[in-house]
Amino acid sequence: MGACYNFPMKVSDAGEFGLINRLDTVVNSAPGARQRRQQLLIGIGDDAAAWPGNGLTQLATTDSLIQDVHFSLDTTSWEELGWKAMAVNLSDIAAMGGIPEYALISLAIPGDTAVEDVVSMYRGMVALAADFNVAIAGGDTCRSPVVAITVTVLGTSGSDSLPVLARSGARPGDKIAVTGYLGAAAGGLKMLTQKLDAKPEVKARLSQAFLRPCPRITEGRQLAKLGVLAAIDISDGLISDLMHICEMSQVGARIEIDRVPVDPLLKTWLGSESLEMALAGGEDYELLFTASTDIINNIKQAVSCPVSIIGEITAGDAGKVTMVDSNGRPFSLKKAGWEHFIT
Amino acid sequence: MGACYNFPMKVSDAGEFGLINRLDTVVNSAPGARQRRQQLLIGIGDDAAAWPGNGLTQLATTDSLIQDVHFSLDTTSWEELGWKAMAVNLSDIAAMGGIPEYALISLAIPGDTAVEDVVSMYRGMVALAADFNVAIAGGDTCRSPVVAITVTVLGTSGSDSLPVLARSGARPGDKIAVTGYLGAAAGGLKMLTQKLDAKPEVKARLSQAFLRPCPRITEGRQLAKLGVLAAIDISDGLISDLMHICEMSQVGARIEIDRVPVDPLLKTWLGSESLEMALAGGEDYELLFTASTDIINNIKQAVSCPVSIIGEITAGDAGKVTMVDSNGRPFSLKKAGWEHFIT
Repeated sequence: MGACYNFPMKVSDAGEFGLINRLDTVVNSAPGARQRRQQLLIGIGDDAAAWPGNGLTQLATTDSLIQDVHFSLDTTSWEELGWKAMAVNLSDIAAMGGIPEYALISLAIPGDTAVEDVVSMYRGMVALAADFNVAIAGGDTCRSPVVAITVTVLGTSGSDSLPVLARSGARPGDKIAVTGYLGAAAGGLKMLTQKLDAKPEVKARLSQAFLRPCPRITEGRQLAKLGVLAAIDISDGLISDLMHICEMSQVGARIEIDRVPVDPLLKTWLGSESLEMALAGGEDYELLFTASTDIINNIKQAVSCPVSIIGEITAGDAGKVTMVDSNGRPFSLKKAGWEHFIT
Repeated sequence: MGACYNFPMKVSDAGEFGLINRLDTVVNSAPGARQRRQQLLIGIGDDAAAWPGNGLTQLATTDSLIQDVHFSLDTTSWEELGWKAMAVNLSDIAAMGGIPEYALISLAIPGDTAVEDVVSMYRGMVALAADFNVAIAGGDTCRSPVVAITVTVLGTSGSDSLPVLARSGARPGDKIAVTGYLGAAAGGLKMLTQKLDAKPEVKARLSQAFLRPCPRITEGRQLAKLGVLAAIDISDGLISDLMHICEMSQVGARIEIDRVPVDPLLKTWLGSESLEMALAGGEDYELLFTASTDIINNIKQAVSCPVSIIGEITAGDAGKVTMVDSNGRPFSLKKAGWEHFIT
């Protein structure tokens, strides 16, 4: 046996959730601020943080978009970049069933960026924020070798009697449902980065899905009002995000892949490849939630987008998601979803 | 005359405040969210945003630290980096006279960063946060070519009867005062980057000032309680930050340079060069404020750090700061302060 050296573990090895678990331990073992931490209804590890205040539940979320990690300026205009940076944060508030109110913007950009490009980016952010009655309240600008946009959105539950939608609220027997259609954002990414051609209506749909996602704020409110307890927005991919719900709720899940609402235009363009995108593509920013069939039927009446039941929460292995086809045969993915630290 | 081409203006030419003014216009010309914007007590351009809620004034601030722009891992440990990222944001709440409550952390790091380094960084953040009863409520981690840490701190004014300290609150005739001693952080930066030697007590003081600044939360509370209306924290440099107060308050200022509290240990180390650092060095995170002599005398009684009167607000040119020596002779700086977009 030779000399041993323990190489330090890198974050790319630990993965995002391995890292978050370590950091959560650091935060919760601090000697001070114990009482303040105990007031938190939801802390690290959900779409947004939540705590009581003002007779309401206060919500706060933050997300960064980093150049050449989350976007490329080759395929995304500055205006689209601004829209998307706002959208991904509003989507986190939607996943809590909340009402967004204020946003803070921290903008790190190279010094040789054109002022008009930054103005375009802000126009994209402001346009989407205004649609949901969100005011940009402040922020910070600084120099950076790459563009990094961090948006923080603050909001409330809108009522003291409504619980927020947590990742930990799923129970065995709940049906699993999803808003809208899936896979179009991943299709858009593929189309734009590989410079592929498609019919105009397919191009328009896929570009819009990837570059200008619309956060499901209105639908999230209905979910909260109609009794849903567990939800997440689909950012990493349907299966990955369902695994987050299952881990936090200590349950399993079974998905019938033929019931997954693959985007119809994506399907006309890519055929069978579109299913993989709907299951693992990510960035659709639709809401994935669990509830009884009755509640889901009420939601179908209340919202204007499609709502599809795609499977069921089980008492099986915590965090495990199984997939079956229409004949009950097991199905497996080539790739589970977006991993934040794969280099 | 040859053919003309209008080169687009770059953010490094516009400067941070030129850029912020353009972005402020974009935000305030949005068609939606008008009522929400009107609720803002303080929006873009101050240390923190403020709006009414919960019978208190709600405060929110965000600031990013970018590798090789704001810090170098050659001179800053991960634990110090975490401390400082939290400190600069808490300092913004201090400058509003507020009580910090919750923090969100958005962390962008290379995939090959050691998990233990990130844990150290979090320990630094959590240690300082706990000192001020601040709970880390959530955040986001993602991959990035450079380390970028964005901290958002949320807090309140602590009382519905106390106004927040705004940059716009200075009036002609107000005295200008500052907490603590100045220049030590800039001295620390010089010492660390140029690997200079100094006596142990000088080394300790300058390193601590640059790497582990202590936000003046307690002092900021006293300022608000005792009737101060205008304050800012010294991040860009005394003169630069005073110019921000003067611009926002539409007043001028006159500083007597001999009354500026240069850090005593810095002075023993650098002699006359230390004055320039105290005036323009930045990152001291002391509070600069304006009030009547009576109020400032009350503050001196109430806080445990030095408080120095260094000049007076004038009705002169808005935004203009003049400096005079003890004989009334004009004094000028080689460099006004930290400019966020000089490359």
